[in-house]
Amino acid sequence: MLNNDLTELLKIEYPIIQAPMAGGVITSKLVAEVSNSGGLGMIGAGYLTPIQMREQIQEIKQLTSNPFGINLFVPNEFIVEENEIVSSNQFLYPIRQQLNLHQKDSFEIPNFNDVFKTFIEQIKVVIEENVPICSFTFGIPSKEVIAELKLSNIILMGTATTVREAVENEKAGMDIVVVQGSEAGGHRGSFIDGNQESLVGLMSLTPQVVDNVNIPVISAGGIMDGRGLMASICLGAKGVQMGTAFLTCVESGAHQVHKEAILNANEDHTVLTRSFSGKWARGIKNKFILEMKKYETLLPYFPVQNTLTQDIRKTSATQNTQDFMSLWSGQSPRLAKSQTVQSLIINIIAEAKKLS
Amino acid sequence: MLNNDLTELLKIEYPIIQAPMAGGVITSKLVAEVSNSGGLGMIGAGYLTPIQMREQIQEIKQLTSNPFGINLFVPNEFIVEENEIVSSNQFLYPIRQQLNLHQKDSFEIPNFNDVFKTFIEQIKVVIEENVPICSFTFGIPSKEVIAELKLSNIILMGTATTVREAVENEKAGMDIVVVQGSEAGGHRGSFIDGNQESLVGLMSLTPQVVDNVNIPVISAGGIMDGRGLMASICLGAKGVQMGTAFLTCVESGAHQVHKEAILNANEDHTVLTRSFSGKWARGIKNKFILEMKKYETLLPYFPVQNTLTQDIRKTSATQNTQDFMSLWSGQSPRLAKSQTVQSLIINIIAEAKKLS
Repeated sequence: MLNNDLTELLKIEYPIIQAPMAGGVITSKLVAEVSNSGGLGMIGAGYLTPIQMREQIQEIKQLTSNPFGINLFVPNEFIVEENEIVSSNQFLYPIRQQLNLHQKDSFEIPNFNDVFKTFIEQIKVVIEENVPICSFTFGIPSKEVIAELKLSNIILMGTATTVREAVENEKAGMDIVVVQGSEAGGHRGSFIDGNQESLVGLMSLTPQVVDNVNIPVISAGGIMDGRGLMASICLGAKGVQMGTAFLTCVESGAHQVHKEAILNANEDHTVLTRSFSGKWARGIKNKFILEMKKYETLLPYFPVQNTLTQDIRKTSATQNTQDFMSLWSGQSPRLAKSQTVQSLIINIIAEAKKLS
Repeated sequence: MLNNDLTELLKIEYPIIQAPMAGGVITSKLVAEVSNSGGLGMIGAGYLTPIQMREQIQEIKQLTSNPFGINLFVPNEFIVEENEIVSSNQFLYPIRQQLNLHQKDSFEIPNFNDVFKTFIEQIKVVIEENVPICSFTFGIPSKEVIAELKLSNIILMGTATTVREAVENEKAGMDIVVVQGSEAGGHRGSFIDGNQESLVGLMSLTPQVVDNVNIPVISAGGIMDGRGLMASICLGAKGVQMGTAFLTCVESGAHQVHKEAILNANEDHTVLTRSFSGKWARGIKNKFILEMKKYETLLPYFPVQNTLTQDIRKTSATQNTQDFMSLWSGQSPRLAKSQTVQSLIINIIAEAKKLS
């Protein structure tokens, strides 16, 4: 059951995909090690410029001859509301004070046109560099973009948090769909059904999606070991995408404070917050989340809020305090270990083989 | 993997436990059919008087010679606040109007001493009737109660929604622990870690509990078929407890409107609410939940709120409208079917055997 149409399509040995975590976690070494160990390494290019992307792709090509993938954020339209920015900065004021941070007078607030232009340039880089697999979060790209990528034989993976989102991904021509359960750390990939009340657990989500699409399904959210891999396969998935499990690996670029926060957390220590970026994301509850909770519905949308909190997150990291960092984590931190990528994958497969 | 220490302990053929849903869903026929088909039928005695309990136990004994179990609510202390009752009735006023219900002048508000006395009498009936298995929701009974039940060789099952709750169950002497994932329909069994923000999905919860207790673990929440059973076993559980899957069976006493609401629902149509009973529970979103949402934090605690909404739920059911009924359901309604208990269990086992 570990060799199936997914592994064949992706030309990988094991149906283990490393989640394309954005924001510094994913070093080229991490991606290459995953691919060299038989899984699929993925670049999280959501926050990368086209130039940075190209550099990382070329770096990885030096480190592995196996397939790897890249993930892009599909731009969602947003409007920059001056008054929301002013009030968000007011809410952030006491936090900047605690960090001895200067109040910033101006921010490089992104606008939708620029974000969209960058996305189109990112697509160009994916094609020029001939990255074999490209996945998307926060939506489905346009027909034109999909057609262009398909012309270059790039395998496309979408993200869904409900059956409807999975069906839309299939209809749009995605070759594979990653279903993200409520357990997942980091940003929710929702783009149609974003209701935070109705977050669906992976045990429910996987079989219901499998029954409603014909493309291979990958389960994501809280999976850390061979038990989770085999459970997902029983539910009808063809493989798993794992984030937190790779985040605490020695090759990961995550801040040591972040790694330790996960290694010391319990299963009920994570919450969903939109205070860091403007989009809902799951992370370990800390001072930032608690202090911002009362303003959560008033904050600007992604990526505006993300820009506003950037200096705070960075400074908190520089000061080695977890209080104001985004400590993304899924709901299985008790299963996290500090180990190499290779031993993580070897252990998963050994455990999975015992169970199958 | 389907025959293990759990099936041996419970003396059942298949590791399938029918969830002890309270409030009319569970007919004696349903319980007996589950046990006759090789699973474990369970009486949901939470709302039953000791006399009703004894009657149902005796009825089931006529219908099956196989083991069956019973579930009790562990009483949680509560204080009756007159002003909360008055305001809750004010919030319920427009709903009673829509149902052409007379405004009630007086309610038989329960008090903790009576609830506790009933619990002790329920325990007596369990012992006198020699019910082989007794499970608990909403807490762990006292040492004395546990000792008494153990003296009669009754097998004890606790309920947990976090690792800590599972560990406490084991420490207290429970023989088995049911772990309830965020996917589960009906009442949350939380009794220490009741934070609704940190609801843990079953895929994360099961292995983390399995790693931290030595007693057999049963997975519950969103499991409907052989895929869910085998996935749970891969995660380290010894069996599953299923509610919604039995609720839509032909032998279930659930209202036809409730059954149809489940059969027509999607995976993201359920939400958590405490408006029906005062305790958090998962059901299909309807008019009652939406209209009461803004008052949710102001309502009296269980079982006071449950008493206040009783006439509303009953009248809504009598009028065959789903608007004001408690439509409990887990997150996998797309997998629900109208079938007999026997075919449900036969299908689960056939699917599970194909996967194992």
